Amino acid sequence: MVKASKVVIVGVGHIGGSLGGALMNQKSDPWHIVGIDENSEHRQIAMKRKLVHEIHPVADFGEHAHDVDIVVVCVHLNVLPNVVLSCSESLVAFQKSKRRYQIPVITDVGSVKTPLLTEFGGGIAANIPFVGGHPIAGTEKSGPQFADPELFKGKLVILTPVKKTDPKAVLRVRSLWESIGAEVEEMTPQEHDQAMAASSHLPHMIAYGLMEAVYRLGKPTNKRKARNLMRYAGGGLKDFTRIAETQAEMWKDIAMENQAPILETILEFKKVLSNIEEYIARGDGPSLSEILQRAQEIRKTL
Amino acid sequence: MVKASKVVIVGVGHIGGSLGGALMNQKSDPWHIVGIDENSEHRQIAMKRKLVHEIHPVADFGEHAHDVDIVVVCVHLNVLPNVVLSCSESLVAFQKSKRRYQIPVITDVGSVKTPLLTEFGGGIAANIPFVGGHPIAGTEKSGPQFADPELFKGKLVILTPVKKTDPKAVLRVRSLWESIGAEVEEMTPQEHDQAMAASSHLPHMIAYGLMEAVYRLGKPTNKRKARNLMRYAGGGLKDFTRIAETQAEMWKDIAMENQAPILETILEFKKVLSNIEEYIARGDGPSLSEILQRAQEIRKTL
Repeated sequence: MVKASKVVIVGVGHIGGSLGGALMNQKSDPWHIVGIDENSEHRQIAMKRKLVHEIHPVADFGEHAHDVDIVVVCVHLNVLPNVVLSCSESLVAFQKSKRRYQIPVITDVGSVKTPLLTEFGGGIAANIPFVGGHPIAGTEKSGPQFADPELFKGKLVILTPVKKTDPKAVLRVRSLWESIGAEVEEMTPQEHDQAMAASSHLPHMIAYGLMEAVYRLGKPTNKRKARNLMRYAGGGLKDFTRIAETQAEMWKDIAMENQAPILETILEFKKVLSNIEEYIARGDGPSLSEILQRAQEIRKTL
Repeated sequence: MVKASKVVIVGVGHIGGSLGGALMNQKSDPWHIVGIDENSEHRQIAMKRKLVHEIHPVADFGEHAHDVDIVVVCVHLNVLPNVVLSCSESLVAFQKSKRRYQIPVITDVGSVKTPLLTEFGGGIAANIPFVGGHPIAGTEKSGPQFADPELFKGKLVILTPVKKTDPKAVLRVRSLWESIGAEVEEMTPQEHDQAMAASSHLPHMIAYGLMEAVYRLGKPTNKRKARNLMRYAGGGLKDFTRIAETQAEMWKDIAMENQAPILETILEFKKVLSNIEEYIARGDGPSLSEILQRAQEIRKTL
């Protein structure tokens, strides 16, 4: 399998830092890892924790992009398209000035793929190939201080090539993830976004929504009642809403990017909730039981 | 504080067994613990695990109820009223035949309180006092093999006395729970059921409903799609729906018992979900962000 030798990670936070650390630890096919991050504290932590070989501010990207094989953009969804675009422009400028034979591949780790692939699916300027990627791994932490080189071991990474994507570019990104123990699966950007809407985005919207509902239910009478509702949460609320504890801004961005698929899943969920409501209202135990039993069976297969 | 010396636990499953084990371990004020369970396997496990001093089938309840101070009924919600009633009848029969001065107290551990207290609030036959109780502790396991004598340490136990409840009876049940490290709080049955609807029953209905929605979303096209949705669940679904993995029948019973308060919370949740849906549909990031940020703040206070 084709192996890249130099990787530039743009954005050395939780995901970028974990990727860097994993590649640094990988002994059989050594990579040279260059980090790019605008946050000087992140740069210090990344070097101290040996998540990268070297790290530089964004302005120096062009200077350090010579001989790069793969650029992995690990920035927030709301700046992702701009960062991908400016990386590719720097690479093109470098190629023009230095004559280079191995064309670099750009990939990313964003949670929503259709809008990005619609923009960059056929590759970017000067045919620098872009391969959409999304590792299904923890998103509750943020910053390189939480980076975990074992994060992707045995985890699923979804790549979303489109018709125009160069298969060799996909293979290079696949080999990067496989070298650190991840399992790679390919699907279309649309399939990815629908699957994620159901399995991740909807659950998050519901978890945040449940907290808001509890807040509203406690609110009308007095603050003591709201606090008390929280105190009695031993019965489920706490575990259930752990995923709503962080990253509100990130989830807002995901919802704004993946509108249509999320709305489809909310609609389906509202139908189920109406069924449950109806069965409780008319005291229809058997029908309610049927839904709860099936849900229990499905949960066991997870 | 008044301390009871003999406790009869009716139903030695996860909760009853944990209570028995905790009282058995409590050295400063020793109790004598009698278990009652119709399941012979449960009886064997309870003795082997030292959750009770002695254990008998249901038919022998009357015989072993002499000198009892507190009867704790730890059976499923759907048989709870009948078991409370037949326990009290046995106690009355015993009192008539033996002349007894200390009147026993009956209490329970059911998750819904209003229907039961409406029935037994003023005490049962011959003024045997009934004190409604509900320890807020794990409900995902079932059977004495999972009994944990530490289960109630630091946990909240809610007692729901009503106007007619003898305060001395409440004090005796309170001392039982406090002796094993639980924190006791009193409220009306209605306050209890509303608080539990928001903090526990609604989250469970939502968790089961989410599994059903994912099932339906995967279903229309083909089974492969449904399975795949499950595979991508790393992003939240798994943690989120852990509480839907067991006890579907128990939750059906809870929903049927606590109809009105649960319906009220579902209504409120549906309003929140409609807000979220609307903000996503019109691309209103700031309004969505407001809800997500507030939810995040509330979650942190849990």
